[in-house]
Amino acid sequence: MMPESTPVPVSPTEHTALVEAAQRALAARDQSGKSGIAAAILRDGQTIAEAENEVHLQGDPTRHAEMVAIARAAEVLGTTDLKGCVMISTLQPCEMCLAAMRFAGIRRVIFAATQGRVAAKYFAFPHLSLDDFRHGDDFDAIGGVCEDLVLHLYATGEE
Amino acid sequence: MMPESTPVPVSPTEHTALVEAAQRALAARDQSGKSGIAAAILRDGQTIAEAENEVHLQGDPTRHAEMVAIARAAEVLGTTDLKGCVMISTLQPCEMCLAAMRFAGIRRVIFAATQGRVAAKYFAFPHLSLDDFRHGDDFDAIGGVCEDLVLHLYATGEE
Repeated sequence: MMPESTPVPVSPTEHTALVEAAQRALAARDQSGKSGIAAAILRDGQTIAEAENEVHLQGDPTRHAEMVAIARAAEVLGTTDLKGCVMISTLQPCEMCLAAMRFAGIRRVIFAATQGRVAAKYFAFPHLSLDDFRHGDDFDAIGGVCEDLVLHLYATGEE
Repeated sequence: MMPESTPVPVSPTEHTALVEAAQRALAARDQSGKSGIAAAILRDGQTIAEAENEVHLQGDPTRHAEMVAIARAAEVLGTTDLKGCVMISTLQPCEMCLAAMRFAGIRRVIFAATQGRVAAKYFAFPHLSLDDFRHGDDFDAIGGVCEDLVLHLYATGEE
C-alpha cells in the first residue's frame, strides 16, 4: 500500500457536482438500458461533461460513466489532454477508469460509494485497491462523499 | 507478485492473427491520425474483430486498440460477454485494457512487445506489472510473441 498524501479538501462546486451526479444516477437507474452510475468532469469550477454508464445502452463493456465523460470532455476541449480537470463519480472508479484518467492527465477524483461497501462486481481486480493506483504521487482521490445518497444502488447485486 | 500458472501454448491461429496485427500496426503508423498499435479478437479460431489505436482519430484517450476491438467484438456477438474470446495485441495491454478485458470476460491474451522493452508512456502505473493483474487465476497472458516485428514502433518515444 502506498502512503496517501493529504488531498485538497472537496470544494463546494465539487460537492454540488457530486449531488447532481447522484440525482442523475438515481434517475438513470429507472431508464431503459441505463445503469445507475453517473460521472461528471469539471474544469476551472465548471462542468464540461456529464455522463452515465452506457455499457448496456451502447452494448460496449468499456463504456463506464467515467469513460464516456472522458470522451465527452476531450471532445469539448478539442484535446485528449485533460490536465487540470476533476472527475466526479457516484461510484469509486474501477481499475479501467483509473488508468484512463491517468492517461488523460486527470489527477483528482471525488466520488461517493466506496469499494469496501459495494458489490464486488464493480471492480476487475479485487486484490488491488485504490491505494495501489495512487503511485505515491499527486493524485487526489476522495471517496465516501454523499455516499448515503447512492450506496443503496450498488450495495447489492451478484458477484 | 502472483504466481503464474502454465498457459496454454500459442496456437498457429493465434500466431497468424498476431502477425496480421503486426502488419496492420506497421501500416497504421503511416496513416493520418492512427497509431501503430493493432489488436484483434478471436473466437473459436476465427477473427471476429480487428482494430487499431484510435485515440487521435476519435480524439478520445480511451480508444486504445484493445478497447476498440472489445467494442467491435461485443457488437458482432450482440453481447458484452466475451467469455471464451482471445485478445491479440501488438503491444502488452495497459492497465485500462487489462481491466476492460476482465470485465468483458476475456481470459487469454497473446501479445508482441513487452512492457520491459518499450517506452514507459504506454502504461499508466509503472509500479504495477502484468503479474499484478493476473490475480492468481486462470488468466493466460503470453508476451514477446513476434516481438521483433513491432518492437521498433514502441521502443522509443518520450515518457
